[in-house]
Amino acid sequence: MLLASRPQGLVEAANLRLDGSASIPEPADGQALIRVQYSSIDPTIRTWMDDAPGYLPPIGLGEVVRSGGVGEVVASRSDRYQPGQLVFGMLGWQEYALADEAEAAMTVLPPGLDPTVAIGVLGVTGMTAYFGLFDIGRPQAGDTVVVSGAAGATGSVVGQLARIEGAGTVVGIAGSAEKCAWLTDELGFDHAINYRDENVGQRLRATCPRGIDVYFDNVGGEILDHCLAQLAMKARVVLCGAISQYNEDRPEGPRNYLNLIIKRARMEGFLILDYLDRFAEAQVRMAGWVMEGRIQHREHLVDGLEHAGDALNLLFSGGNTGKVIVRL
Amino acid sequence: MLLASRPQGLVEAANLRLDGSASIPEPADGQALIRVQYSSIDPTIRTWMDDAPGYLPPIGLGEVVRSGGVGEVVASRSDRYQPGQLVFGMLGWQEYALADEAEAAMTVLPPGLDPTVAIGVLGVTGMTAYFGLFDIGRPQAGDTVVVSGAAGATGSVVGQLARIEGAGTVVGIAGSAEKCAWLTDELGFDHAINYRDENVGQRLRATCPRGIDVYFDNVGGEILDHCLAQLAMKARVVLCGAISQYNEDRPEGPRNYLNLIIKRARMEGFLILDYLDRFAEAQVRMAGWVMEGRIQHREHLVDGLEHAGDALNLLFSGGNTGKVIVRL
Repeated sequence: MLLASRPQGLVEAANLRLDGSASIPEPADGQALIRVQYSSIDPTIRTWMDDAPGYLPPIGLGEVVRSGGVGEVVASRSDRYQPGQLVFGMLGWQEYALADEAEAAMTVLPPGLDPTVAIGVLGVTGMTAYFGLFDIGRPQAGDTVVVSGAAGATGSVVGQLARIEGAGTVVGIAGSAEKCAWLTDELGFDHAINYRDENVGQRLRATCPRGIDVYFDNVGGEILDHCLAQLAMKARVVLCGAISQYNEDRPEGPRNYLNLIIKRARMEGFLILDYLDRFAEAQVRMAGWVMEGRIQHREHLVDGLEHAGDALNLLFSGGNTGKVIVRL
Repeated sequence: MLLASRPQGLVEAANLRLDGSASIPEPADGQALIRVQYSSIDPTIRTWMDDAPGYLPPIGLGEVVRSGGVGEVVASRSDRYQPGQLVFGMLGWQEYALADEAEAAMTVLPPGLDPTVAIGVLGVTGMTAYFGLFDIGRPQAGDTVVVSGAAGATGSVVGQLARIEGAGTVVGIAGSAEKCAWLTDELGFDHAINYRDENVGQRLRATCPRGIDVYFDNVGGEILDHCLAQLAMKARVVLCGAISQYNEDRPEGPRNYLNLIIKRARMEGFLILDYLDRFAEAQVRMAGWVMEGRIQHREHLVDGLEHAGDALNLLFSGGNTGKVIVRL
C-alpha cells in the first residue's frame, strides 16, 4: 500500500494506493524473502504520513507505508534466515519484503510465540509501556498512576504494570463504558473514567485526592490539561503520544503546564527506539507476567491490507480495544 | 499598601490602597519591630494577586501585598534580633513589620552587606538562577544554554553562571537593543536576541545550530515555543516562570511540546522555596564570583512605596534591566 497523498485528518481512500505493479522481489545474496502475515497498526504511522520533521523522515509520496510487522521467511540466500522462521521488523504495508543480513533489522521470533503477541504485548507496544512507565514515570510504592488511552495496546499494559509494581491507585481514562468495564473488571484498574460521558476533571479529583504522581499520556489535548491540573508534588508526566492532536493542523499546547512549577513536577518525552538494546531484559519479565495471567492483552484484528487505512483510523476514533493488527 | 481589588492584566492604581489607619505596631515578647527599607519586586507577586490556586495562598483583599524585603530592627523584645541589624524576610509592602522569633522567618544579614545585593544577586533572585540552572537544567561542559528574560534579575545571572560552568554557547533573549548590548558586551553572553525586533526562531537556529541543551524559561508564550522547536536531544527545559502569561485570562500552552518526545527531552518546574536550606552553600559561591567580577548585577531602584504597583508593572512591560527594588 503506497502513500498516494498526505492525509488531512483521518486517512481517506484517496491517500493510499495499492501498488498494482508490485511483483515478488528476488532476494540477492545475503537477503531473504519475507511474506508479511501481520502488520502492526500504531498511532505513530499517522505522524510519518505528514510532511513534518519527526524522529524518522516522513514517508515519501509513492513509497510503501512504513510499519512494523511479522512475516515468514519463504526463501533465503542468507545464513541468518531459514525458510519457515517468523521475523519481526519494519516490513511495511505490503505482501512481500526483503530482509538483508547486512542491515540486521529483522528479529527472528522464537518458535511457538504467537505473532500477534510478538507484535503487541511483547513487542514495541508492550516495550513502550514498560520503559515509559519504569524509566520515565518511575512509580514508587503507593503512588497514584493515571494513564490515558487506557484501553489501547500501550495504555492497558501501563496500568497493569503499575499495579504489579505496587502503585497505590491506578486510574485509566478511556472512551466507552465497555472499555472502562474491561479496565476495572478484568485488568485490575481501581477506577476508569469514560471521557466521553464523564467530567474528567471532577472524576480525577475524586479518584486521585492526593494528586497524580505519574501520568502516562497517550492523548494530549484536554485530558492532558485535566491531569496537569491534578498533579501531586514532584509528579512525573510521561509523554508517549498525543493521539488527540495528530490529525490537527495546529496542535493545542497544554494550558496548565505552569502547574509543573507549582508542583515541582516534570514532563518528559521518550522514544522506544532508544531502548532496543534493553528489549530482551524487559521481554523476559513481561513474558513471565503474561504467562502468570498478571498481564492480560487483547488484539483487534482487521483482515486485509486494503483495510489498513481504516485500521489506522480506528486508533483515532477509539473503535479498538487493545492492539490493532492487520492480518494479511 | 493593601490589595483593594484584583488586577485584570497590569496593576492599576485602583487595585491598591494605602492603609491610612496603619499605626506602628508594638512588638510583644519574642518579637522585633522592623522598619522596611527595601522591597523586592518579583513577577510572582502578580500571581499572588489573582484568586487562583498556587504555591502560596492568594493575597486576600484588604491584606498587605506580600513581598520579600530588607528592613532594620528598630526595637526588639527578642534575643534573636538586635536594634540596628538588617533582616531579610517577607516584610510586605508596608513601612513597618513585626519579626517573631517563634516563626524564625527573618534572616539577619551579615554586617556590611549591601541590602540591594542581599535582595538581588545573593538573595532569592540569584538563588533562583543558581538552583534552577544547576539542579534542574544541569548544563554539561560545551552545552548550548539559552535563557529568556535574560536582562532581568534572574536571567542575567543564569547566563553568567552558565558561562562560569563551562557552557559552550550562551544565548540570551531580551526586549531591547540596549539590553542585548549589556548581555553580550558586559556579561559575556555569546549572543543576544532582541525578541521585539528579530525573528526569534531564525536567530535561534543560527546561534544554536546543534540545538539547545538547556533552556531556562522565564517568559512562556511564543518564546517558549520557539525554543521547544530548537531543542537538542535530551534537552532540559527549566520552567522558572511565564511572565508573558501572568496577565492573561487564559494562558497559552506550548504548542511545540511534542518536540519533547522527538528529542527525548524534559520540561521541569521548580520553586526556590524548596532550596532554603541550601542557600548558604550557594551564597558563598555566588559571593565569591561577585567579588571576582565574574557575576555582574544591576539594580533598578524605584523610590517610594506608592510606586510599588508601577514597579511591579515594569517587569511586564520590560522597563527594567536587572533587579527591581522599591526603596522606602
